[in-house]
Amino acid sequence: MATFQSLPGFREFYPESLARRNHLFRCWRQSAHAYGFQEYDAPVLEPLDLYKAKSGDEIEAQLFSFTDKGGREVALRPEMTPTVCRLVGAKANALKRPIKWFSIADFYRYERMQKGRGRCFAQFNADIFGEAGPEAEIELIGLLVQCLRGLGLTADDFYVRLSDRNLWFFYLEALGLNAEQTRSMLGAIDKYERLEDAAFKIYTDAQGALDEVIKAKIVAFLGIKTLAQLEAVVADLASDDLTARLDDWRRVLGGLEAMGLSDFVTVDLGVVRGLAYYTGFVFEAFDRKGDLRALAGGGRYDDLVKKLGGPELPAVGFAIGDMTMELLLAQRGLLPDLVSAPDVYAIIGGPDERLAAFGDINLLRAAGYRVDYPMRELGFGKQFKVAAESGARVALIYGSDELARGVVKLRDMTQREEVEIPRDQVAVAVRDFLTAE
Amino acid sequence: MATFQSLPGFREFYPESLARRNHLFRCWRQSAHAYGFQEYDAPVLEPLDLYKAKSGDEIEAQLFSFTDKGGREVALRPEMTPTVCRLVGAKANALKRPIKWFSIADFYRYERMQKGRGRCFAQFNADIFGEAGPEAEIELIGLLVQCLRGLGLTADDFYVRLSDRNLWFFYLEALGLNAEQTRSMLGAIDKYERLEDAAFKIYTDAQGALDEVIKAKIVAFLGIKTLAQLEAVVADLASDDLTARLDDWRRVLGGLEAMGLSDFVTVDLGVVRGLAYYTGFVFEAFDRKGDLRALAGGGRYDDLVKKLGGPELPAVGFAIGDMTMELLLAQRGLLPDLVSAPDVYAIIGGPDERLAAFGDINLLRAAGYRVDYPMRELGFGKQFKVAAESGARVALIYGSDELARGVVKLRDMTQREEVEIPRDQVAVAVRDFLTAE
Repeated sequence: MATFQSLPGFREFYPESLARRNHLFRCWRQSAHAYGFQEYDAPVLEPLDLYKAKSGDEIEAQLFSFTDKGGREVALRPEMTPTVCRLVGAKANALKRPIKWFSIADFYRYERMQKGRGRCFAQFNADIFGEAGPEAEIELIGLLVQCLRGLGLTADDFYVRLSDRNLWFFYLEALGLNAEQTRSMLGAIDKYERLEDAAFKIYTDAQGALDEVIKAKIVAFLGIKTLAQLEAVVADLASDDLTARLDDWRRVLGGLEAMGLSDFVTVDLGVVRGLAYYTGFVFEAFDRKGDLRALAGGGRYDDLVKKLGGPELPAVGFAIGDMTMELLLAQRGLLPDLVSAPDVYAIIGGPDERLAAFGDINLLRAAGYRVDYPMRELGFGKQFKVAAESGARVALIYGSDELARGVVKLRDMTQREEVEIPRDQVAVAVRDFLTAE
Repeated sequence: MATFQSLPGFREFYPESLARRNHLFRCWRQSAHAYGFQEYDAPVLEPLDLYKAKSGDEIEAQLFSFTDKGGREVALRPEMTPTVCRLVGAKANALKRPIKWFSIADFYRYERMQKGRGRCFAQFNADIFGEAGPEAEIELIGLLVQCLRGLGLTADDFYVRLSDRNLWFFYLEALGLNAEQTRSMLGAIDKYERLEDAAFKIYTDAQGALDEVIKAKIVAFLGIKTLAQLEAVVADLASDDLTARLDDWRRVLGGLEAMGLSDFVTVDLGVVRGLAYYTGFVFEAFDRKGDLRALAGGGRYDDLVKKLGGPELPAVGFAIGDMTMELLLAQRGLLPDLVSAPDVYAIIGGPDERLAAFGDINLLRAAGYRVDYPMRELGFGKQFKVAAESGARVALIYGSDELARGVVKLRDMTQREEVEIPRDQVAVAVRDFLTAE
């Protein structure tokens, strides 16, 4: 018989690794709760057209897509955004605004495997619908920072790079580029960090020669790291659009500063988030050392709900992936060892004592205590060894002598001290012991 | 633009319904934790052969199966058992025994939709590997009962029907049936509850005539409801196998009685769990009123780990489905209304007051409090209304008068009383207020 294996790019979570993943999920859920976001979930399998409508037909090559037994073209979801737009769009009038939602879910992409990227990964997604103003960006970037701080990361470990596709549109317009040239230039800017000067070939291949003065201005714009630098550049251009847009920048950065989060956020116009559907502010979180893929990314996408069949509804959102995040936490020693020990281990003399123990074990468990015991008949010595190895804080000893006298021994596994407890007071004694510690 | 919809048989979880599902998951996780089970997870997509190896080629018709872009025959998992056998089998020597594992996960079956059954559903799965004796059954049935009691259900709401495929094998052998006849008869017994006498046609179609005396004995065996009745029938038969097996029955029922769970468990030999891979005790949980599908089902399957490529490893397990469980809880009024209110709502005078509030809001959130505030500029009256509707227990009022005096108003939303708090003591005051309530 062949031994079965899991499919390439899919992870198995044995208890130790699941405990680590659940630690991420718990922290993210706690952060989202504090920020007043509500959790939703949605089908893992969706109509293929949902992704084609958002991203074009070429997306299919990257998907786990197939024809189901009813002849429907379906796909395992590669991301949450189209789904959440569909859900919110379908009930937009009934939902109280602002709509602040989050989810923790698995996603699937048929891609080449590499470090920090598998064919199945989890994401935390958070989105705000119904708020056109930059207060939504403040709220979301605040939540993003909290999701990472909640895991023990500090401003020395990560930062959020804030950029703005609107600012680029207005700036390139002020430099004299038309709409088509602007699209090509954003493609070049998206690759500039990796390709440097060679990135402009993306522009020149599509649009012909690029004026050297304009190129120099774009490179300088890419180098801007502060609001003051940005204000200085914009002041020279006498563009009403740019001037108005800087007000939004001041509100976002001012709000984040008021939240005490300035150390976590950098102006960085090198981020444009591909050629995607974003319509305004975009942001990505990176580790400070810069040797990992982006930890998180997001931005404003005011057109997508309508594009997917819903009403006009402004939206901002971001996603954090679990794989890169776990790599960073491992590097920083921030993945706690979470395999949990029982509170109580019951040591059992024989079959009669087992029955006596069962009543207490069940009472303690129903009260929420984690209780373990040997399922087989074992000698006392072996049982004490197992109890010590289990990490239990207290052992209950059900020997025939004790039971004949109507008592049970409670052993403090740390202090190695024992006291005798009347049989009918075991649950109370355990509770008092564990609470007092 | 067409409006997209989710696929037939797949559920969307808007926040209110996700809160209900998470309530189930939280209770199940808590029960499993108390019983000392460890959580694992595994890929949602598996090689199709894994399911064919367990259930035969005909299973494919019920699966979401397809050929992936690498030419692999794959399927969305319809159940957890083959996967968990694979995981445990691959590391059987390294895992400390007994191996007590649980998971909460989604499953997929391409089936006709009906009440309590969709094409995607969640299950709680719990299994014990490495224990051949009936103590494993006691532990698992105990956990099953606790998973339902933890949700507020009582012995008036549900019960566990305990049966035993071994007992049937030994009994039918004692009645003179050969192995093939026994297989056909178990198929008939499996359908007896629904078809009554007509179920025996399954037997007679395959094996020819059925002796009326034997049939009467089988029907009588099916009617057994207590251990005493079972002992009386077995005493007449002088079968060593049956006599030995009754010892196991006494241990299981005695253990459950010692745990105080007798009210939840009934002897009921009508349960055989189809023609599946079970090898001993089998059990199913039902609501007492009997108008719903099984709430949970499981049993011993000692051969499956080896069949799927692992070592010889005894195993018992069960699964609880979320859909029938939620129907029952809804019938009993046990689905709490869980949409959560913020702890604090911040009422904000204007842009300057907003910046002042942001610092406190972020501190309170980082401390774990759920804080909300209006993202748009709104009049005080409107904000008080939103705060009251939100269900917040306390409002913090950031007006220009208050801030000029270096204070914030803290309003008890229930008592409608306000106190002034120095700006630098807001976090402490909120904590004291919420703790004192």
